[in-house]
Amino acid sequence: MITILPIREIPDIQKGDDLGKLIVEKLGAQGDEFHKGDIVVVSQKVVSKAEGRTLSLSKITPSRFATEISKETGKDPRHVEAILRETKKIIRMRAGHLITETRHGFICANAGVDQSNTSKTRDVVTLLPKDSDASADRIRKTIHHLTGKAVPVVITDTFGRAWRVGQVNFAIGVSGMKPIHDYRGTRDMYRRTLQVTEIAVADELSCAAELAMNKADKVPAVVIRDYKAPRGYGHATDLIRPEESDLFR
Amino acid sequence: MITILPIREIPDIQKGDDLGKLIVEKLGAQGDEFHKGDIVVVSQKVVSKAEGRTLSLSKITPSRFATEISKETGKDPRHVEAILRETKKIIRMRAGHLITETRHGFICANAGVDQSNTSKTRDVVTLLPKDSDASADRIRKTIHHLTGKAVPVVITDTFGRAWRVGQVNFAIGVSGMKPIHDYRGTRDMYRRTLQVTEIAVADELSCAAELAMNKADKVPAVVIRDYKAPRGYGHATDLIRPEESDLFR
Repeated sequence: MITILPIREIPDIQKGDDLGKLIVEKLGAQGDEFHKGDIVVVSQKVVSKAEGRTLSLSKITPSRFATEISKETGKDPRHVEAILRETKKIIRMRAGHLITETRHGFICANAGVDQSNTSKTRDVVTLLPKDSDASADRIRKTIHHLTGKAVPVVITDTFGRAWRVGQVNFAIGVSGMKPIHDYRGTRDMYRRTLQVTEIAVADELSCAAELAMNKADKVPAVVIRDYKAPRGYGHATDLIRPEESDLFR
Repeated sequence: MITILPIREIPDIQKGDDLGKLIVEKLGAQGDEFHKGDIVVVSQKVVSKAEGRTLSLSKITPSRFATEISKETGKDPRHVEAILRETKKIIRMRAGHLITETRHGFICANAGVDQSNTSKTRDVVTLLPKDSDASADRIRKTIHHLTGKAVPVVITDTFGRAWRVGQVNFAIGVSGMKPIHDYRGTRDMYRRTLQVTEIAVADELSCAAELAMNKADKVPAVVIRDYKAPRGYGHATDLIRPEESDLFR
């Protein structure tokens, strides 16, 4: 039996807040503590806020290119400018939509630059953490330091998908586990070698966590208990399909 | 707290087996029963087997077109023939890969025609259920008939993704709930209208279930407990993005 435990009462995060410490404290405050095998899943929004990865739109002067793209997409030119600064490559563009490859290599809407749950005005946007795997690493190390427990950490963000309606959560940061369960060489129930060889478990953990997170973001972190994560080390960037083997770029 | 409960000891499924009945029996055999708010997630493979949606490759004569495509993709021409019979449209084709739109409208590898966990020989392949929403409906009705409980049912299959390595589970059948949680009109923690408006919760439930299913398929069904599914009715086909609004076809 796997359980998904929301960590409640995490306050509104400010730049400089120690998320790992807050997670340990708030889990303790609800009469719980980390168990062996626990995994923490944290929403990107609070990680970005703690790291000061926010921008005030009123301080942005859009470039000519951003202004052009804002006409094509119907987006605020300052928002487009913020997106382009985080972008390595524009993948698709259409009214209302700007799908880009971020500097990390993730392909997502608006390079992850987001206006929801950021501040009381529409002026502030959050950017993705500069290095979200390193962010996961820092949170994991803080938890280990405070509790002595080796708890893998996944940082998750909301992604749209090709071909399917609606968004789901996928991983943008991973530390302390392999993001992929590789079944190559294992056999199915008829003892034949399995054809489905690689399951993106860090993405599945992100989806599972979202079920307990609630989009109004009152639950920015959850514990997933009694799931056996693939042992070893890896990063969320391992989940990025290299361009040359990608059929959809 | 949400829990993901594996239903164990479901035997090797044969054509004609009553999956809803087996799920109720095996949950009972592990000393449990359905609670209010439970959701059942069932793997496509056992649904297809129960419905006799299998084909023996040795009985297939590949068409000329299938033979051509088998040369381009390096796949068994009889497997290609089975895939094409389930296909509305070929989306991408490359060595080792054949991504198609199924007759239901799902876009996936090999039109969901799969050789793993099907039989002791490589001769038998499973096809997706003819109408996977109707399959979910039948299982839901059986559970309701036997237990008196209204338990939503999700049928799940393994999907590859554009841009990301590895596969995850998404929904191909839904009954008794809405597959999408629509946040339009709701407000974020700063009381601003949310920009992320539609979460594909049936896909997230599928991912969560896969964590407990294990690819060797000893656990073809799980119960997800204490997740508040979006009330109402809908189908997995609601999750198919219409071609005209899809940026990636």
